[in-house]
Amino acid sequence: MTWVPGAAGSGYGVEHLPYGVFGYGADGEHVGVRIGDRALPLDRLEQAGLLDAGGVFSPDGGRMASLNPFLAAGPDVWAAVRDRLTELLTDPAYRDRVEPLLVPVADIRPRLPFAVADYVDFYSSEHHAGNVGQIFRPGQPPLPPNWRHLPIGYHGRAGTVVVSGTEVRRPCGQRRPPGAGQPVYGPSVRLDIEAEVGFVVGVPTALGTRVTADDFARHVFGVVLLNDWSARDIQAWEYQPLGPFLGKSFATSISAWVTPLAALSAARVPAPPQDPPVLDYLRESERFTYDLSLEVEWNGTVVSRPPFATLYWTPAQQLAHMTVNGASLRTGDLYASGTVSGPSRDQTGSFLELSWGGTEPVTLSDGSQRTFLEDGDTVTIRAAAPGPQGTTISFGEVTGRIATAR
Amino acid sequence: MTWVPGAAGSGYGVEHLPYGVFGYGADGEHVGVRIGDRALPLDRLEQAGLLDAGGVFSPDGGRMASLNPFLAAGPDVWAAVRDRLTELLTDPAYRDRVEPLLVPVADIRPRLPFAVADYVDFYSSEHHAGNVGQIFRPGQPPLPPNWRHLPIGYHGRAGTVVVSGTEVRRPCGQRRPPGAGQPVYGPSVRLDIEAEVGFVVGVPTALGTRVTADDFARHVFGVVLLNDWSARDIQAWEYQPLGPFLGKSFATSISAWVTPLAALSAARVPAPPQDPPVLDYLRESERFTYDLSLEVEWNGTVVSRPPFATLYWTPAQQLAHMTVNGASLRTGDLYASGTVSGPSRDQTGSFLELSWGGTEPVTLSDGSQRTFLEDGDTVTIRAAAPGPQGTTISFGEVTGRIATAR
Repeated sequence: MTWVPGAAGSGYGVEHLPYGVFGYGADGEHVGVRIGDRALPLDRLEQAGLLDAGGVFSPDGGRMASLNPFLAAGPDVWAAVRDRLTELLTDPAYRDRVEPLLVPVADIRPRLPFAVADYVDFYSSEHHAGNVGQIFRPGQPPLPPNWRHLPIGYHGRAGTVVVSGTEVRRPCGQRRPPGAGQPVYGPSVRLDIEAEVGFVVGVPTALGTRVTADDFARHVFGVVLLNDWSARDIQAWEYQPLGPFLGKSFATSISAWVTPLAALSAARVPAPPQDPPVLDYLRESERFTYDLSLEVEWNGTVVSRPPFATLYWTPAQQLAHMTVNGASLRTGDLYASGTVSGPSRDQTGSFLELSWGGTEPVTLSDGSQRTFLEDGDTVTIRAAAPGPQGTTISFGEVTGRIATAR
Repeated sequence: MTWVPGAAGSGYGVEHLPYGVFGYGADGEHVGVRIGDRALPLDRLEQAGLLDAGGVFSPDGGRMASLNPFLAAGPDVWAAVRDRLTELLTDPAYRDRVEPLLVPVADIRPRLPFAVADYVDFYSSEHHAGNVGQIFRPGQPPLPPNWRHLPIGYHGRAGTVVVSGTEVRRPCGQRRPPGAGQPVYGPSVRLDIEAEVGFVVGVPTALGTRVTADDFARHVFGVVLLNDWSARDIQAWEYQPLGPFLGKSFATSISAWVTPLAALSAARVPAPPQDPPVLDYLRESERFTYDLSLEVEWNGTVVSRPPFATLYWTPAQQLAHMTVNGASLRTGDLYASGTVSGPSRDQTGSFLELSWGGTEPVTLSDGSQRTFLEDGDTVTIRAAAPGPQGTTISFGEVTGRIATAR
């Protein structure tokens, strides 16, 4: 139990301790952990002689704070820092020295928590892939023939991954209107979200080597929520034969706080069975996933509750697949689950599915109706997971508001 | 005319001056330019008081040399440094002070010349796209319906871009053998190349803005040769519906020397006409490309001579398309032309095309036959372009040898 007032039971108790990067006052940037409605700058803790992490939290004097040096340091350092922070935030003997360092979360300016190296997006929800298949390719089998054999994925644009709260400008581009022979240019008229869970790689690998599914926790540090904004009309016209490009690359939002895997030990649950059996390199000694309950809020109305644990391919399998060809990992690599959709309509992670291709509008609590996003709309994705001893782990939200096309 | 012995007429005369990063002796790393068979370390030139570029060539004392600070500095600095280097290497008055700084290219250890931010690969050769369509989708129209309306592209893996000379290990992965119902796991049996030209972005942009085709030279610094190694069997099984992933992500090789656009003024030629007319955002005030003649050498035999100037989409159009949705650019972004193939078989930039899907083997000069790459094979791509006053610009080669799968 932490001595920080109000933290216990807040979803950000001492059993959670997610990491982020933020500015505060005129004070430069800090790497910190969140506890309740406070943030604790870890460079300050080091300067106060209360934490020794080899300087990973203030690599260049705090001018450009980034989680990357800590991510690269590996599981032993991750565990040691977490143990020490737990001690400092629970033992009342430290309260006098640590409490003055806490800053209100309400006053910080969140930054992108880590420098994104490569960004990969998977397509691992059977319900999502099946829904998309039915909407885009009616009359054909909903899943492509390879879908149950490998976790389909592709590379996205790392340079346009932005932190929660960043405004998202409606993209312009080419689309071919229904029935038209020629494409037209203009703002997307089918702007959508994809509610996803992202995994953050800490420990890199050498080119030509691979990572097994069982080595997942030796390389992956933690978890963010992710909104893979998608312009469906741009995407539909461009994606054959080489996949999504400008329909996705204008923005991908992630939560400001990275939840370490260590905070999710109580959230581990068995993953769904797989049929047909997978090839050996995708086998897991213990097949598990995480029980994360997502919530999608559209202008204040909760429109969907996607269940992460229903995904067919696990994050460990995704990692094994991504590296089976010898592709190296870098610190800061980010890979996302793909849209999380459960079996029922109110569990879908995209508005494409929620409105069934734009044919069945959704009614929000103010009485307005929506199929795709309108200018000024705000979407917020949250998630919760079971923590130890009946606590709850709340994921830092990922939110964004749509600005008018330029 | 340069005073450096042997440089004139070598393809690396003073009209060229490509940039690279290399190690030399026990001496750390340097950014340098190549002149003839010598390299000139630019940090040394700065230390000798002969060049003032604001420290961009030795940002951290040479421990981790990178072109990125220079790339970010923009066209005025690019031009000023080039002018000064031209002066130093042509005016005999400087010879006594500069010549001792030159090191033999034969003795340097080339490094990746810049930190790759995002890597995008286009698909802009009509001949290549048509050939691939005929090979993979016989009986269907060879070009997808969007092909003449937009430069199709996708994101590749930036973290596995390697410098010329790096060994390329044959990737393992899933493939579905012809006629088989189920996939198998193992080393790729259809390992291929793609001969391409890459463009290196220097000046970044803000998210939500776009770059017009006419602003190409305000953002793009220079050109590399690129080999987009491709495992055709892995790619064929995985690429529907989200595009190539593991069939490409194991390695992409680039030349060690970046040729600045400024060296290619004499190589500018009109680009092929486009029909149907393109949308406004893809129009160019002056439609041009570069007259680069590529050469693909397989175990010492030149098997193909792909002509870059035949590409349907120009690098300026690719840049305008890539940013039309507001996607930002970062210093170090790399985008490649896609496989360069001309109209005839001996101008194709992939072995898939050269052997027509593996059905028509190629005979090398030692009498051996090939369809796809065998272990131990070496592929080297070179290129030449017209320089000023009848000179030739030789592109630093991109070469790689295939190592046995692990």
